Amino acid sequence: MPKSREIHLVQRPSGAPSPADFALVDRDVADAADGEVLVENLYMSVDPAMRPRLTAGQALNEAMMGGALGRVVQSRHGDFKVGDLVTNRLGFREFFTSDGKGLTKLEPDPDLPLTVHMHVLGMTGFTAYGGLLHIGQLKDGEQVFVSTAAGAVGSVAAQIAKLKGCYVVGSTGADDKARWLKDEVGLDAVINYKKEPIRQALEAATPKGVDVYFDNVGGDHLEAALRRMNTLGRIPVCGFISGYNSGHSVVSNLSNIIYSRVTLRGFVGTDFMHAYPDFQRDMRGWLKAGRIKYQETVRDGIAAAPDALIGLMAGQNTGKMLVKLAG
Amino acid sequence: MPKSREIHLVQRPSGAPSPADFALVDRDVADAADGEVLVENLYMSVDPAMRPRLTAGQALNEAMMGGALGRVVQSRHGDFKVGDLVTNRLGFREFFTSDGKGLTKLEPDPDLPLTVHMHVLGMTGFTAYGGLLHIGQLKDGEQVFVSTAAGAVGSVAAQIAKLKGCYVVGSTGADDKARWLKDEVGLDAVINYKKEPIRQALEAATPKGVDVYFDNVGGDHLEAALRRMNTLGRIPVCGFISGYNSGHSVVSNLSNIIYSRVTLRGFVGTDFMHAYPDFQRDMRGWLKAGRIKYQETVRDGIAAAPDALIGLMAGQNTGKMLVKLAG
Repeated sequence: MPKSREIHLVQRPSGAPSPADFALVDRDVADAADGEVLVENLYMSVDPAMRPRLTAGQALNEAMMGGALGRVVQSRHGDFKVGDLVTNRLGFREFFTSDGKGLTKLEPDPDLPLTVHMHVLGMTGFTAYGGLLHIGQLKDGEQVFVSTAAGAVGSVAAQIAKLKGCYVVGSTGADDKARWLKDEVGLDAVINYKKEPIRQALEAATPKGVDVYFDNVGGDHLEAALRRMNTLGRIPVCGFISGYNSGHSVVSNLSNIIYSRVTLRGFVGTDFMHAYPDFQRDMRGWLKAGRIKYQETVRDGIAAAPDALIGLMAGQNTGKMLVKLAG
Repeated sequence: MPKSREIHLVQRPSGAPSPADFALVDRDVADAADGEVLVENLYMSVDPAMRPRLTAGQALNEAMMGGALGRVVQSRHGDFKVGDLVTNRLGFREFFTSDGKGLTKLEPDPDLPLTVHMHVLGMTGFTAYGGLLHIGQLKDGEQVFVSTAAGAVGSVAAQIAKLKGCYVVGSTGADDKARWLKDEVGLDAVINYKKEPIRQALEAATPKGVDVYFDNVGGDHLEAALRRMNTLGRIPVCGFISGYNSGHSVVSNLSNIIYSRVTLRGFVGTDFMHAYPDFQRDMRGWLKAGRIKYQETVRDGIAAAPDALIGLMAGQNTGKMLVKLAG
């Protein structure tokens, strides 16, 4: 019977989450029974979308949920054998047993690092791909603005837009991230919104307006973009980080969507699952050709998971935030 | 040389427009020259969308612009003869000469009153029709909420939704309008937002949530609707009356569009002109069958036009606001 450790939410944060909102709990996990597998998680994902679930959705005093990549260590299930890699929604814990539901077998690409399946080549990258191409209906050569452009989703969205021949402006909140976006990723303009007001900076950076704004932020970024949208522009709304801690994010100029006939559309990756094979083909090709760059921030061990989430909300990550749970 | 009178904007209103913002100006209009027609306007339209143009767009000390229906009284143009009815964008004046550009000949339906071409069977009705069916992608039997449901656009949108077998909730700001919507139009529920808080009232009136919110208002109505939107709901945004006088309209829970994957889309009637023939066929049929009801508020004479616009913004109209300029 393996010993596992897991992270519980023990109280709901008011505002930014703090260490006292979480607890590390020891647990005995049963061996795999008939028709079950025992999985050891190798990596777990830490995402901005986890924050609203702390306010509503995530049960108290239970192991938290989140994306993870694990390895089958015991199998009494016909579809899985020991050593199989499986993606799952049971992050924030080291071991779990499963009847196989919710597990997806992963065939890792031998030419790529395993962790890319947790971000660029996983749901993070797919969210950027489908949000831009399917929800945002991006056309080659358009004018594009991406907020949190150095983040896990934003950096992929910005680079796909560049690959499609677009003029791309990205915003970020730190000089080192801005440098990476300008020098390594090659965006046309980068705004550090902590150093210059986003409204004026975006106006200066978008002389031809904005056709597609890939929104991860809401709030002042969305207001700034609404002032710059071209006629029949699209705003795929992927996240609203500006409101996750406070519970609300005020937008005062939404009426602009009438004059420019703009479409705002909230989405999640499962809205365009039909595009998943195209995404896998395109993204594997781009990665192997070195045409998509990425960064990772990897924390070590389950005990670091709460701090990883707290740090993510404070912008301490560079690229995708992961926690390594086992080797 | 006919004498005409016209309405000028002489100063930009701060907040609600007032009589001092407008002037009635006498003018001599030239007779029709070669290739021209002289048109006498019979009716002019007064619309909420005129308010933002007073702040920006409408030139000062010039005749204002707006939809009108006129009659050709002199013609030296091969495409028009005396007596032809023409729709035009040159409201707020009694006479004008034209080279024909911007004039659309109207074949009035002998079985319908002339004024319906100014609203239910004109751009007002078409805006409702296309906004609901094309932008909103309404499906039979869905859950629908319409704001300013007794207004010129809202009342048509609400009734088309009823004709499509939908459950329809309407909001309005007066008891007589609420009664008309409930007793004459037959909406499933009517909210007088001046008597009960829109948020709680909408929640009570929409036990199955909202699939399509036809938004004429923005602000607190949009916030209330965002709390009730079903997954993959649509919000065609036709107007933002709540912000027209103040210049802004705050929405604090826009992040809800992510969780329910809602689409908000601003539009104008010209976005779906391909649907105009279908609209004319459907709406003429519905009107003749008595299946679409309407109300008109008709003010008399050009001098009443400013007060008609001021009154419209204050909700003093019942249904479409028109000014009769000639018999």
